[in-house]
Amino acid sequence: MDYEVVDARISPEGRLDVLSKSEVNRLLDTSQGGLYGLFRNCSLAVLNCGSSLDDGKELLERYPDFAIRIIQQERGIKLEVTGAPAHAFVDGVMIKGINEHLFAVLRDVIYVSDEIDDNPKINLDTPDGVTSAVFHILRNARVLVPRAEPNLVVCWGGHSISREEYDYSKEIGYQMGLRGLDICTGCGPGAMKGPMKGANIGHAKQRVSPGVYLGITEPGIIAAESPNPIVNNLVIMPDIEKRLEAFVRTGHGIVVFPGGAGTAEEILYLLGILLHPENAEMPFPLIFTGPKHAEEYFRRINQFILDTLGIEAQQRYKIIIDDPERVAREMAEGIRQVREFRKLHGDAYYYNWMLKIDAEFQQPFEPTHENMRSLALHKNQQPHELAANLRRVFSGVVAGNVKDEGIRSIEEHGHFEIRGDTEILEPMDELLSSFVAQHRMKLPGKKYVPCYRIIK
Amino acid sequence: MDYEVVDARISPEGRLDVLSKSEVNRLLDTSQGGLYGLFRNCSLAVLNCGSSLDDGKELLERYPDFAIRIIQQERGIKLEVTGAPAHAFVDGVMIKGINEHLFAVLRDVIYVSDEIDDNPKINLDTPDGVTSAVFHILRNARVLVPRAEPNLVVCWGGHSISREEYDYSKEIGYQMGLRGLDICTGCGPGAMKGPMKGANIGHAKQRVSPGVYLGITEPGIIAAESPNPIVNNLVIMPDIEKRLEAFVRTGHGIVVFPGGAGTAEEILYLLGILLHPENAEMPFPLIFTGPKHAEEYFRRINQFILDTLGIEAQQRYKIIIDDPERVAREMAEGIRQVREFRKLHGDAYYYNWMLKIDAEFQQPFEPTHENMRSLALHKNQQPHELAANLRRVFSGVVAGNVKDEGIRSIEEHGHFEIRGDTEILEPMDELLSSFVAQHRMKLPGKKYVPCYRIIK
Amino acid sequence: MDYEVVDARISPEGRLDVLSKSEVNRLLDTSQGGLYGLFRNCSLAVLNCGSSLDDGKELLERYPDFAIRIIQQERGIKLEVTGAPAHAFVDGVMIKGINEHLFAVLRDVIYVSDEIDDNPKINLDTPDGVTSAVFHILRNARVLVPRAEPNLVVCWGGHSISREEYDYSKEIGYQMGLRGLDICTGCGPGAMKGPMKGANIGHAKQRVSPGVYLGITEPGIIAAESPNPIVNNLVIMPDIEKRLEAFVRTGHGIVVFPGGAGTAEEILYLLGILLHPENAEMPFPLIFTGPKHAEEYFRRINQFILDTLGIEAQQRYKIIIDDPERVAREMAEGIRQVREFRKLHGDAYYYNWMLKIDAEFQQPFEPTHENMRSLALHKNQQPHELAANLRRVFSGVVAGNVKDEGIRSIEEHGHFEIRGDTEILEPMDELLSSFVAQHRMKLPGKKYVPCYRIIK
Amino acid sequence: MDYEVVDARISPEGRLDVLSKSEVNRLLDTSQGGLYGLFRNCSLAVLNCGSSLDDGKELLERYPDFAIRIIQQERGIKLEVTGAPAHAFVDGVMIKGINEHLFAVLRDVIYVSDEIDDNPKINLDTPDGVTSAVFHILRNARVLVPRAEPNLVVCWGGHSISREEYDYSKEIGYQMGLRGLDICTGCGPGAMKGPMKGANIGHAKQRVSPGVYLGITEPGIIAAESPNPIVNNLVIMPDIEKRLEAFVRTGHGIVVFPGGAGTAEEILYLLGILLHPENAEMPFPLIFTGPKHAEEYFRRINQFILDTLGIEAQQRYKIIIDDPERVAREMAEGIRQVREFRKLHGDAYYYNWMLKIDAEFQQPFEPTHENMRSLALHKNQQPHELAANLRRVFSGVVAGNVKDEGIRSIEEHGHFEIRGDTEILEPMDELLSSFVAQHRMKLPGKKYVPCYRIIK
Repeated sequence: MDYEVVDARISPEGRLDVLSKSEVNRLLDTSQGGLYGLFRNCSLAVLNCGSSLDDGKELLERYPDFAIRIIQQERGIKLEVTGAPAHAFVDGVMIKGINEHLFAVLRDVIYVSDEIDDNPKINLDTPDGVTSAVFHILRNARVLVPRAEPNLVVCWGGHSISREEYDYSKEIGYQMGLRGLDICTGCGPGAMKGPMKGANIGHAKQRVSPGVYLGITEPGIIAAESPNPIVNNLVIMPDIEKRLEAFVRTGHGIVVFPGGAGTAEEILYLLGILLHPENAEMPFPLIFTGPKHAEEYFRRINQFILDTLGIEAQQRYKIIIDDPERVAREMAEGIRQVREFRKLHGDAYYYNWMLKIDAEFQQPFEPTHENMRSLALHKNQQPHELAANLRRVFSGVVAGNVKDEGIRSIEEHGHFEIRGDTEILEPMDELLSSFVAQHRMKLPGKKYVPCYRIIK
Repeated sequence: MDYEVVDARISPEGRLDVLSKSEVNRLLDTSQGGLYGLFRNCSLAVLNCGSSLDDGKELLERYPDFAIRIIQQERGIKLEVTGAPAHAFVDGVMIKGINEHLFAVLRDVIYVSDEIDDNPKINLDTPDGVTSAVFHILRNARVLVPRAEPNLVVCWGGHSISREEYDYSKEIGYQMGLRGLDICTGCGPGAMKGPMKGANIGHAKQRVSPGVYLGITEPGIIAAESPNPIVNNLVIMPDIEKRLEAFVRTGHGIVVFPGGAGTAEEILYLLGILLHPENAEMPFPLIFTGPKHAEEYFRRINQFILDTLGIEAQQRYKIIIDDPERVAREMAEGIRQVREFRKLHGDAYYYNWMLKIDAEFQQPFEPTHENMRSLALHKNQQPHELAANLRRVFSGVVAGNVKDEGIRSIEEHGHFEIRGDTEILEPMDELLSSFVAQHRMKLPGKKYVPCYRIIK
Repeated sequence: MDYEVVDARISPEGRLDVLSKSEVNRLLDTSQGGLYGLFRNCSLAVLNCGSSLDDGKELLERYPDFAIRIIQQERGIKLEVTGAPAHAFVDGVMIKGINEHLFAVLRDVIYVSDEIDDNPKINLDTPDGVTSAVFHILRNARVLVPRAEPNLVVCWGGHSISREEYDYSKEIGYQMGLRGLDICTGCGPGAMKGPMKGANIGHAKQRVSPGVYLGITEPGIIAAESPNPIVNNLVIMPDIEKRLEAFVRTGHGIVVFPGGAGTAEEILYLLGILLHPENAEMPFPLIFTGPKHAEEYFRRINQFILDTLGIEAQQRYKIIIDDPERVAREMAEGIRQVREFRKLHGDAYYYNWMLKIDAEFQQPFEPTHENMRSLALHKNQQPHELAANLRRVFSGVVAGNVKDEGIRSIEEHGHFEIRGDTEILEPMDELLSSFVAQHRMKLPGKKYVPCYRIIK
Repeated sequence: MDYEVVDARISPEGRLDVLSKSEVNRLLDTSQGGLYGLFRNCSLAVLNCGSSLDDGKELLERYPDFAIRIIQQERGIKLEVTGAPAHAFVDGVMIKGINEHLFAVLRDVIYVSDEIDDNPKINLDTPDGVTSAVFHILRNARVLVPRAEPNLVVCWGGHSISREEYDYSKEIGYQMGLRGLDICTGCGPGAMKGPMKGANIGHAKQRVSPGVYLGITEPGIIAAESPNPIVNNLVIMPDIEKRLEAFVRTGHGIVVFPGGAGTAEEILYLLGILLHPENAEMPFPLIFTGPKHAEEYFRRINQFILDTLGIEAQQRYKIIIDDPERVAREMAEGIRQVREFRKLHGDAYYYNWMLKIDAEFQQPFEPTHENMRSLALHKNQQPHELAANLRRVFSGVVAGNVKDEGIRSIEEHGHFEIRGDTEILEPMDELLSSFVAQHRMKLPGKKYVPCYRIIK
């Protein structure tokens, strides 16, 4: 099957369109050490926005001839794209939002290569070094705005949710927009797009023009979850862990919509951090919400958290079903407390320096059969340590369900074995079974074959 | 039943918040010649936005204690509202868009009183005087922007359309927004709101920030069709005829969505003008569009126009069913031709001075039984004259259907009698019957009792 | 002698470049009732800026072929000038500041004709009507900015002062600019230009970009005192009395530099107003200042005020010699008190509504021999009434010295006779003699022949 | 003697006021490797602006207790200064321009340390590496603006010129400002300040608001030549050679005012570059100008260039005496040619990549007795090589005249010996003697004792 393509030459709309000769050369360099491959693939992903495709591998195969080239001209640089997906254009002209995203890709690819990698002043092996790297990348992308009041709400949740859940997420966005709250998501469709569309209308009514629609992604996910052009500040973090850290350090509150195992993983990541004793006093508004029919999803998660992490963990979030106005009001109120706290401690509004993030949340977990089998799933550890290990379970399940490498590993070696104390494994079994029953493990229409086995 | 109300004091966001002492006094003057009554009622209508109520009389009765007062302070004026509808506020703060609308009401009420009424330089009894008055009011409201490219699309259609038609109008707005087109409507829900919401998303993707969402209303209709807060430029024209003239002189093209008899009246108003021999050469893109199921509506109108006004009249519009992209593309192309034409003739982009509007389209038609009975409905006249008379038929039908005075007149004197040549009355009978069959004469759920009788 | 001229077509930079057809026609109308003559002559005056010529009559004779025409185009209006003074152009392109001034002339000529003259809502025969007219003209020119803090200092003084006095006025402007104060003058050279040039540097250092340089002029004076292009808000009031009222109602404080009889007239105008009992409580910072060698000028004026109006009158001003920093500091402090006062009384920051101005200060004084002879110059009246009469004396002297009509009247009828009580005439004689001795009655180099005779 | 000092806490006005924790720490680090010393001394220099002191060493001694500290707060960082020179403040509030300069110092000190020093991607030992470093620093300071038209004129000349020369440099700035040209200088008084002040008035008249007043300095000179607060973009390059490269790569043309040996050094630096065969075709407008009485200065330099570098070298500049309008017109015309050339070659308007700068102009020359004695001063070399060596002679003379180390070296070892061919030494002797005769070697009032001896 053939896909329509377009060739075009575009000028940047943003600012960082001044490149040195050596930067241009590195971006054009197709050799091993060069940046061309990364730059090309992220660019293609950005151009693919609006397609319903959410499979990164297929995307690259659909547009084999896609190429992108930097042209130095007297007024600045331009980009020349050939073989680009036609749906990035309207009547032959590239959508401005996508145009901006291309230059955001360019900016971040160059910056990470120039200033983060090999920079003797940033040691990526230490927690402080990672936190500093995240800070520098966000600052360079102008995400960190001094003097602004805290108002950024991160929205998490599934990208293939039901129509009803999608409409609900729009309504939440609308109510938050009416209250002047800005939106940050991981880009992509579903719960990533709905809140921004809703907030856009809310902002229009409140003459917030334009609101901030921040998208934080990374090269491994961008192809599957193309940023919607409404996103007016796009940042490409170098990897998934820095992306998660970017969310929790720049966001002033988090709303979680229904999802699947991936959403559970994100919840456990965040609880793992918030349960760290050093974060005990820190306000961090966290709301799980969905329409009436999503109540079951959150009921199960709530029970699981109670059974495994205990009642303390439940104090860190609220569950609000089918009440968008209340969600928005409580989030606004929660952020007011964040503001007071930061002010009291002199911490920046735009970056949560005080939040303690353990190294184990900054380093990737590789879900091999061996690693999965050896996870410490018992209560003889601090809740935040247990949360870290529970998160790894879900990370493995996600990999076994949908990620290329994970699927192949399951095919070869059979199910992941999940071992541990019964008081952990029982609730986990129930939660995972409920996900299967709710069809949240796979796209609708396909029968789910579990990739794991719980060894009680 | 009680309705929730709020008291508040608000500052203007716009510019004309500097008033002289005598202006303040006139606005506070509740006597016969004073402006308070007009100012209060339009303000209440603006505050009522978002309610589903579309009955102006009921609105005024719901909020009997509503009051508005101007306060002169050292930094400018403020408005104090008491007993205002609670849904104009979010968490106790008035929505900014509504705030702006209140000051737009203030601006236009003052301006028309100060500078139009009794102004010895503007003779409202002449066509040029009326056109000049419309121009001055629009200029004062900053609607007429020099140096801007033509891109304003007026959207007409019913305000109580079906969900499917509403979604379709959003999609049209989206596609037009993607092409940089701005939207003008008569305010209110339905086909008046959908295109703006859609365009808002299209503009966001194209970084048109903010787009223009122009609402043109008048005191007689504003209570029934409250402006949506997305409208970011609201103008209150003094009466319905000046409002219609404002549409056709500022808009660069018009899209008509399905409606009922009122929409037919608007179509005939426009065709009557465009068929005037002096307008023969003037490009004026006019597109009737709707989703698949609205095809019948336009098929009938098309037939009626052919039967009565002839094939020439059909050349002035296009009917496009269920193809939003094509509508937007053709409108953009049509506006390019408008641009060329204005350039060639040195006519302003922002105001269509060259359009000939006969006095009969500037003067109101009073639908008495006598006037209805005496309409010249035959083909021994120029098509544009016939169009004027046909328009009056529909104007009368609308009045008899929904307007207070019209309904009472029907109750007292029986049906309007519509007389004329058979070759006019036949098609009219068919068209009106089709409206009844499509339930476009009344709100759904009510049985329609005709207010007219066709005397063939 | 021939003067270099240029033809050009210019576009407006400002906003009011949208005109109705009838406005264009009136501006092109060269008949008696038309506006062309006024528009042309003010335009020529504006174009003449930078020339050293300060004689309005000669100006008009120098450029007899100058013409200006309005052209309506698709993007708005343009102006076509022919035979315009070449020094308004740099390398063939009109200086932008002058371009703006031309459109300011256009705006005010149209507005006064459209909205002030013959407006049944504004009665120019009453004090309130005049005050309202001044307000409307200033509002239309966007001089009245709500929400801004009070910071506008009016600078008065001679336009043909010495180099040393000019440099001093620049230094005052610089020190006021450093303190964020804006400048308003009557346009023209000398003490009208120096403070703006100085403030421009002060504002640049303080990043006030751009500051406000407001020029208030009127058709009778503009030809003699062309606005400097630094003026970035120019208003043409219809006559001298409305111009003076505009100064005192928009300015938050006044600095007076040395001048001649005209400056004395302005001082008496202002004292006459400030001494009105209703203004007794109102703060109004007023500073007379100059370099060391101007001390004598103010010493004499100070003595004259003491002798005629009394010690109370001296309390309304300060004299500061040769200390620019102190002048700026005291003015800033005085304006802080104005701010407090307005806030306390809820009076607008942008327009001093509370200031009482008697009708006698709003109506012109015609300096005939008869009127001059009959002035009530005695102490059997309120000080503010005496001030009004003293002001008329100086008004007559100025007319007899330099105004066309006055000079001719003196030639015909001999000296003006000034009669009154000795306790008034003695100090007046001394003051006028000191002006003669200081060469402040005429341009340097010419021997002054008095136009008056004091009849003690 | 005591100098008045002030303590204050200031917020940034610019953007880079978001710092990471490690950046703050390095700026506070007073140890050897820390940045505190550099940051403090440059900050003090910036605060000293407006003082007539031009001796860096004395400055540091005058304010021994001056300290500056970074404070991290919830809305961003602040700076706390103690013991700061009082003339940086107006009524206790720091002048905004100086405030900005402090943050410019902060920005550049951090950036050079973070991203230039030790950056494995920038090799400062190669010409490309140096050029890249200059580019990065300027980009980070937002000096390199894409899409802007070329219009930046660099002004060089003495900082202790006569009043007449200073007024002339203002007039040149005024005429350039009227033509929309922006100004770049090396900061400091005299010919560095005049053009900016003049341009400020020219820009105001042309509504260029604000114009660009770019100051490029370096830590070794900033204490002696404090930037004037009019400078609205200040860059601190790491050393003198990168500063010179920044001038010639960002400026589109250069005006040279009279000066002394230092100005001669700059002229030879520029000619040395322009005479390089690879630059032969490149347009680069270069004008030497001054008032009538400065004619002798340029006549001598012109003769010297003819005698040593030949007639070809004279083609690279124009000398215009006492005609500011012509200077501005020719500069504007020259820049139009630069624009054409860059466009033709696709070279950036904002950075002259194509200009060939040999390594010998990028590396510092150390004026020891040995190095001075061994300079190759003969015609058996390319003119651009000879220019490099001639430049070194003047560099040595400047050091021997005014620089701390140079003076001490002369005291210890006696005169620098300048040896070479007579056809070089004769003209040099004449030129240097003329500088002595014109009192351009030392501040006025002091007798000049030569630091060199020409050994013919």
